[in-house]
Amino acid sequence: MARIVQKFGGTSVADVERIKKVAQRVKCEVDCGSEVAVVVSAMAGATNQLIAWTRETSLLHDAREYDVVISAGEQVTAGLLALALQDLGIDARSWQIPIATDGVHGKARIESIDAAEFRRRLAQGQVGVVAGFQGIGPRGRITTLGRGGSDTSAVALAAALEADRCDIFTDVDGVYTTDPRIVAKARKLDRITYEEMLEMASQGAKVLQTRSVEMAMNHRVRVQVLSSFSDTPGTLVVDEDEIVEKRVVSGIAYSRDEAKITVQGVPDRPGVAAAIFGPLADDAINVDMIVQSASEDGRTADLTFTVARADLDRAVSVLEKGRKGIGFAALKPDPNVVKVSVIGIGMRSHAGVAKQMFQTLADKGINIQVISTSEIKVSVLIAAEYTELALRALHTAYGLDAAG
Amino acid sequence: MARIVQKFGGTSVADVERIKKVAQRVKCEVDCGSEVAVVVSAMAGATNQLIAWTRETSLLHDAREYDVVISAGEQVTAGLLALALQDLGIDARSWQIPIATDGVHGKARIESIDAAEFRRRLAQGQVGVVAGFQGIGPRGRITTLGRGGSDTSAVALAAALEADRCDIFTDVDGVYTTDPRIVAKARKLDRITYEEMLEMASQGAKVLQTRSVEMAMNHRVRVQVLSSFSDTPGTLVVDEDEIVEKRVVSGIAYSRDEAKITVQGVPDRPGVAAAIFGPLADDAINVDMIVQSASEDGRTADLTFTVARADLDRAVSVLEKGRKGIGFAALKPDPNVVKVSVIGIGMRSHAGVAKQMFQTLADKGINIQVISTSEIKVSVLIAAEYTELALRALHTAYGLDAAG
Repeated sequence: MARIVQKFGGTSVADVERIKKVAQRVKCEVDCGSEVAVVVSAMAGATNQLIAWTRETSLLHDAREYDVVISAGEQVTAGLLALALQDLGIDARSWQIPIATDGVHGKARIESIDAAEFRRRLAQGQVGVVAGFQGIGPRGRITTLGRGGSDTSAVALAAALEADRCDIFTDVDGVYTTDPRIVAKARKLDRITYEEMLEMASQGAKVLQTRSVEMAMNHRVRVQVLSSFSDTPGTLVVDEDEIVEKRVVSGIAYSRDEAKITVQGVPDRPGVAAAIFGPLADDAINVDMIVQSASEDGRTADLTFTVARADLDRAVSVLEKGRKGIGFAALKPDPNVVKVSVIGIGMRSHAGVAKQMFQTLADKGINIQVISTSEIKVSVLIAAEYTELALRALHTAYGLDAAG
Repeated sequence: MARIVQKFGGTSVADVERIKKVAQRVKCEVDCGSEVAVVVSAMAGATNQLIAWTRETSLLHDAREYDVVISAGEQVTAGLLALALQDLGIDARSWQIPIATDGVHGKARIESIDAAEFRRRLAQGQVGVVAGFQGIGPRGRITTLGRGGSDTSAVALAAALEADRCDIFTDVDGVYTTDPRIVAKARKLDRITYEEMLEMASQGAKVLQTRSVEMAMNHRVRVQVLSSFSDTPGTLVVDEDEIVEKRVVSGIAYSRDEAKITVQGVPDRPGVAAAIFGPLADDAINVDMIVQSASEDGRTADLTFTVARADLDRAVSVLEKGRKGIGFAALKPDPNVVKVSVIGIGMRSHAGVAKQMFQTLADKGINIQVISTSEIKVSVLIAAEYTELALRALHTAYGLDAAG
């Protein structure tokens, strides 16, 4: 008998009507003879309202009280879904926080799940409904996992229950080769490896939260991404062994959440990189891609790197403050960039992927500003206005276009 | 140093603006050097929304899941108020459910409060904010105390903390001699005894919940009813000993929540009352006032009694079902009645209160349909259309009118 965890996001439980539909879906799985645990998000909009209230109340809010307020949203959905399931004649109950986390309120990490009693009930045929996105900290106070944390709750619960599968119901029907809103010929993938999914998620595909994919990979939880609004099968995120035909490139991701900073005329002496990146790190600003190029006079260099777009202003002010110490000539911030990444585990054994990418972009007259690579990924930074052109050209070049 | 519990109802915390005003009020008490614990209701409207969702989801809902959903409202307010207090520079935190209840979900009774840690924090100057209306049942699941239960939470907490006073902030500024919306000359009482307040509450004055008054009386908690929208002192509900000048009549209450049933032509034989009231009790219908009168033929009697107006239809159908067994001639339901009660501990030592009531009503041509009395109360049932006339006449007759 299969043991399944099903997770439903905010748009899937946006109102009572949809919660009842979710209950129907859960019932199907129960009728198939599966043991079912369900993880729910807050009703769409509820969390935003709660966050707005905390902001209105106090700008410098205590993260512990913030968590008390915010976690109420999922609690409501959990109770309502349990009621909706009972209404269909299914034995169901909601559970508060069987999930122990560390004490980092607002973005707590799951430490353990005491699932013994929960599991016993599942085995008796009772459906367990768990409020996602939250847990209980070391001092007995409610914690939240950070936005999108319900995915992580679901995968962690699936790991603790040794579930056969963790179904993540969302508003898209799977993982695509690239964003189908931009590339009409994008195809839904039947399967994708954890490593690829992790790169897709961290490179901008917003289907699954990065942390939940990491956790799935570490605990070998089979995750399925599928739509709660259609009945088609979704995309399975699985171990490499489960994928028979390995593609060289599986998908193309892009992220608009990038900004570029060029520091011009940096003196070419030891310690200068530390003088630039040290203060940024101290201010919790993550630097992603970096490239250094010699300037024409040969004595100074230009340093170009990317930060999250939300951090751009802060990064500039940090650098300006250190200008004297570093001794650079000029600072050029540029928010109008996009990072495009081609991703595929087949790259490990196939050469030429990067070359094909550069050639394809060059053929379209798109200038590459920064490059970074990993074992299964090549990323380039380009001007934002070329986003759609680049995605379509690369999608065709790597043979990902849907037939017809 | 005084230890104070302050309770704020739904209209007092209806939005963030008001929550901030509540924080200001709490701050005043803290600045005076008091230890302060605060009990909050859900933001006005929030509970109704949550109840509507549970009804929409499932008509025959599981009370345990209902409680999970409904209790979220107070949790949100508790977190927000803690934030608002911190924003004013006050050390404050919210507490989940240090209140143990029995397992009767939806109307649980408080059994104990583990206040040791809570009290230690208060002594250190930290303000403790508690979500009212809820507790935790014997199996670790959230329970609610039933609507209005936040008053009871506050009084129970005050008893557990041995607080000097429990301030109940509401939308009226105290307890009046009668409803000021009907009698313009109604006066606010400075003090009232537990016994009188209990009668006022159970006879229709909706200022405090009956259970909270019972609990205050049992634990000798000094309760103050006052407005969160004005700065005037309210009404103290205290022990008889604290009231120097005892009035014969303290107040006049009325309840429209009554309905009358007359059973005509009941055979005058033993066991007939049991045949009538037994099935009503079995159906959980409370009977309040009862009067029996012989009919003209001398062989049968008429039996008149009152039930809650909401129970009227059900009571009639229960009686009709038993008609054959009881053998009555006719059933006359009448929802157009009101119960008016004069209340005062002075009655114990003063005769003539009832007589004065009957005379006053007779002078105005108001017919009394049923009478019931207790040690400190005389109640009469009259036609609903005379409500205002009766209240004004009695208020004047007992010398309660405000001067000027």
